Amino acid sequence: MTHPISRYPIPALADLPDDLRARILEVQEKSGFVPNVFLAFSHRPDEFRAFFAYHDALMLKPSGLTKGEKEMIVVATSGANDCLYCVVAHGAILRIYEKNPLLADQVAVNYRKADITPRQKAMLDFAMKVCVDSAAVGDADYAALREHGFDDEDAWDIAAITALFGLSNRMANATSMRPNDEFYLLGRVPKSKP
Amino acid sequence: MTHPISRYPIPALADLPDDLRARILEVQEKSGFVPNVFLAFSHRPDEFRAFFAYHDALMLKPSGLTKGEKEMIVVATSGANDCLYCVVAHGAILRIYEKNPLLADQVAVNYRKADITPRQKAMLDFAMKVCVDSAAVGDADYAALREHGFDDEDAWDIAAITALFGLSNRMANATSMRPNDEFYLLGRVPKSKP
Amino acid sequence: MTHPISRYPIPALADLPDDLRARILEVQEKSGFVPNVFLAFSHRPDEFRAFFAYHDALMLKPSGLTKGEKEMIVVATSGANDCLYCVVAHGAILRIYEKNPLLADQVAVNYRKADITPRQKAMLDFAMKVCVDSAAVGDADYAALREHGFDDEDAWDIAAITALFGLSNRMANATSMRPNDEFYLLGRVPKSKP
Amino acid sequence: MTHPISRYPIPALADLPDDLRARILEVQEKSGFVPNVFLAFSHRPDEFRAFFAYHDALMLKPSGLTKGEKEMIVVATSGANDCLYCVVAHGAILRIYEKNPLLADQVAVNYRKADITPRQKAMLDFAMKVCVDSAAVGDADYAALREHGFDDEDAWDIAAITALFGLSNRMANATSMRPNDEFYLLGRVPKSKP
Amino acid sequence: MTHPISRYPIPALADLPDDLRARILEVQEKSGFVPNVFLAFSHRPDEFRAFFAYHDALMLKPSGLTKGEKEMIVVATSGANDCLYCVVAHGAILRIYEKNPLLADQVAVNYRKADITPRQKAMLDFAMKVCVDSAAVGDADYAALREHGFDDEDAWDIAAITALFGLSNRMANATSMRPNDEFYLLGRVPKSKP
Amino acid sequence: MTHPISRYPIPALADLPDDLRARILEVQEKSGFVPNVFLAFSHRPDEFRAFFAYHDALMLKPSGLTKGEKEMIVVATSGANDCLYCVVAHGAILRIYEKNPLLADQVAVNYRKADITPRQKAMLDFAMKVCVDSAAVGDADYAALREHGFDDEDAWDIAAITALFGLSNRMANATSMRPNDEFYLLGRVPKSKP
Repeated sequence: MTHPISRYPIPALADLPDDLRARILEVQEKSGFVPNVFLAFSHRPDEFRAFFAYHDALMLKPSGLTKGEKEMIVVATSGANDCLYCVVAHGAILRIYEKNPLLADQVAVNYRKADITPRQKAMLDFAMKVCVDSAAVGDADYAALREHGFDDEDAWDIAAITALFGLSNRMANATSMRPNDEFYLLGRVPKSKP
Repeated sequence: MTHPISRYPIPALADLPDDLRARILEVQEKSGFVPNVFLAFSHRPDEFRAFFAYHDALMLKPSGLTKGEKEMIVVATSGANDCLYCVVAHGAILRIYEKNPLLADQVAVNYRKADITPRQKAMLDFAMKVCVDSAAVGDADYAALREHGFDDEDAWDIAAITALFGLSNRMANATSMRPNDEFYLLGRVPKSKP
Repeated sequence: MTHPISRYPIPALADLPDDLRARILEVQEKSGFVPNVFLAFSHRPDEFRAFFAYHDALMLKPSGLTKGEKEMIVVATSGANDCLYCVVAHGAILRIYEKNPLLADQVAVNYRKADITPRQKAMLDFAMKVCVDSAAVGDADYAALREHGFDDEDAWDIAAITALFGLSNRMANATSMRPNDEFYLLGRVPKSKP
Repeated sequence: MTHPISRYPIPALADLPDDLRARILEVQEKSGFVPNVFLAFSHRPDEFRAFFAYHDALMLKPSGLTKGEKEMIVVATSGANDCLYCVVAHGAILRIYEKNPLLADQVAVNYRKADITPRQKAMLDFAMKVCVDSAAVGDADYAALREHGFDDEDAWDIAAITALFGLSNRMANATSMRPNDEFYLLGRVPKSKP
Repeated sequence: MTHPISRYPIPALADLPDDLRARILEVQEKSGFVPNVFLAFSHRPDEFRAFFAYHDALMLKPSGLTKGEKEMIVVATSGANDCLYCVVAHGAILRIYEKNPLLADQVAVNYRKADITPRQKAMLDFAMKVCVDSAAVGDADYAALREHGFDDEDAWDIAAITALFGLSNRMANATSMRPNDEFYLLGRVPKSKP
Repeated sequence: MTHPISRYPIPALADLPDDLRARILEVQEKSGFVPNVFLAFSHRPDEFRAFFAYHDALMLKPSGLTKGEKEMIVVATSGANDCLYCVVAHGAILRIYEKNPLLADQVAVNYRKADITPRQKAMLDFAMKVCVDSAAVGDADYAALREHGFDDEDAWDIAAITALFGLSNRMANATSMRPNDEFYLLGRVPKSKP
């Protein structure tokens, strides 16, 4: 009863455009395996390029949010959208960035009970409103962020990360994208030292 | 009480990177005005590029869906997400593509009452499930599409357009993006002939 | 794929009771066409009379709300109930009363983004609570209205208009009442002067 | 901590227009007391007249539904809208019409567990869809009614009763209309015979 | 069309373990009849014992809440969960404890309109949040209780009663547990004095 | 920013009644640590006894469901109720029973994407309906179970486990019960063999 990587066919690495293959080899080099989202999206090279360009624009650039905080937003959003791929894959990244083996499960299930700061809770309150009721986002929500030191650029970052992973969650759910088995354990076990 | 284009500052055209300025001038040339989404997103050039790359990958490429059908998905999704910008702007595009001045309002308010084919209704049923309950999308939803002649690539198109405009809806709602006044009337009045 | 006026038969004008025929001819005289709601409800003359008596009692009498504000309530309610007939027909009336070609689409999709006053937004906040969660309406909601200068009679007007068009929305949805094609364009194009 | 009859003032009987006073005296004669809905609505005589005209048009006329079945619709709708006045007042009427002291509480809380026929359950399924999701009512719902012998006129009756009492529920909730104490016990105790 | 006591078989009293039979005879002695919940749960003696042990631990012990207030929580929770058995059976108990023939219907349909104190309304606000959105319960909810004089032990009582009857509501709904006819009238008619 | 075990005080082991202390020492002996639910509930010994009696009656007795399947129900229910304690603690137990390090995260986030059998999916479909909409559970739901070989006793088990852990979820959420750090990793790493 094991689900496959995706409802859709996965091209052979050799058949991919050079830039996709390069990106995939790069992530494999870095992570030790190829996250399935790269394979699943490689079914549509132009969408692959656009998605990862968007991803990089938000997740890799300097920001008022730490890299760990950005992943908290991804995990909380993916929990709200019941997206298995993103909860598991980005949960692993969150654990690694925050060097905290507990945080991802906490944020995915109920961020109000997570071991985070009040500022981070305010960040996720804003993200959840964008995620589930964006039409009602207004001045009061921006003001609540400012009380915790977030400026308008931070607010954009929070909203945009939430929105991008809402896209990702819907694609992963619709295509039944399967998280790699490796993600489940990543960041949970302290590395032994030599 | 008129709302501005966006909560965020809009850069002067002269200050934009060349590629953004070129794209903006191109759309202005074609449409006679610059849709505010180009201005609002130009606050973040990398996200601008990624968003429109994704947009073009889905909306401009050949597909089992007509260009009008793709816009039906955008309008229905934007209606479900209560996104003023996208309902108004893509409503205009839908009217133009379908040469039907009534269709956009019908699809935005309640596509079940719209003057569309049963096949198009099935397409929007699938889109709405991806939009509001993607975690429950499954085999039965794909089967319902196939009964109306949609194959799996069409299903991906429907899901991806829904997902991308879910992103767009959330950004437009969070930034209070204002639709250009021009959109409201576009495609509603038959052009007089010379 | 064009939907008919109603699921139910529409009596010939000649077969209607005199008072219904008179009212229909009067509105035709005034508007240049007969709004389909008059035809659809003429299937049941007693309900026709009661509905329009209720309508007139609320919409035509002097009030602390302007005629345009009353139509804002109708359009917002109809948007919340996804009622195509009422969004389109009353959207036209709202545009005409307010001499504003943009307002109806704004209010129908998301009144929080509409070009309205804070007082009008408070009015629609109250209406939406009556519309979707009337059991929770309480003192705090009346107090919020009073802060914007609405008295208790205004509150009754808002609640009653919301409630009456909630009835109308449900009837239009259940009978698949079709808005007249004329409504879609009304009030969108400034009248040229002689 | 006893709530008053209404948030709004109740005119003295002597100050009412003759037709309202007559109707109120008539119901008092028949019932032994004046149901508060007559008093609460008498604050607005024109709305009083329209509401009861609508009520009579639906509830008093011959129909494919029995008077008891119509009251089942009222009670189920009022339960779904959490309307205390209508659950209590129309619950009493339902008990009396059906000569069944248990039925009203069953229908108000969960009609699926009530001692009703499958046909009546289908009737309430349709009513509940009109009540909570009228935009989705379509051919399949009409077909389900027909399987239980309801024709299109019956469907109109069900929809219209649901819609009218949705109006009534919203007004009663917004005005905090209090059910008369007498209603709570009516129809619960078999009348002893002389 | 009368529903049976339960979807599940009811053991004969003689076939029950002694402790269950004793408890059932005791309640019969006290109430004059055996509430069906005892019969329905007797299908599973160990669950019977655990359920009533939990019940007694919460409902019979001294507390900052009166016995009537505890039953208000049960009735409001059961109303929110649409549980016919518990609304009817515990409604009867609430009427008896509070010597108020109106209160149970008020609390079951909409406690905001009930003849209760502001303190009791705050108690039910907390209970309803535990009932429908427990993941969001937090410091502000505890603070709101304290403003009305409830301490943390009272808060536990409210939460635990809500949680236990949420269990009971789900079992009664899933097994179609039927309330005894006797409950409907109990506490509604003042006892005549000798 | 680390949350404590519970909002409520935790008694010293020495101060507990003998039976509670014995149970706690037994689970500590078996698990190597004391799950916090035992400590949190020990604040109320009678509720502790009742809860674990109910737990044992359902989870330890022979059944048509395997022990792993029972834990799937607990984890899916706890995911639906956003209960951190139960997702983490029972997720660990599920991994151990099923000897599957991936299953718990799958079931907690979206059981439709989990590596389970169609029969197990039907079991969780029933559980989720009891969890979120028990008032609508009816014959069709029992029939769907029977198609997968579940009899009525199995249905009771599914409903009762869902209901009991709905209670547990509400208590854990209301008291901010913290899962032990140990649970997060349990069952994720294959035991090395000697």
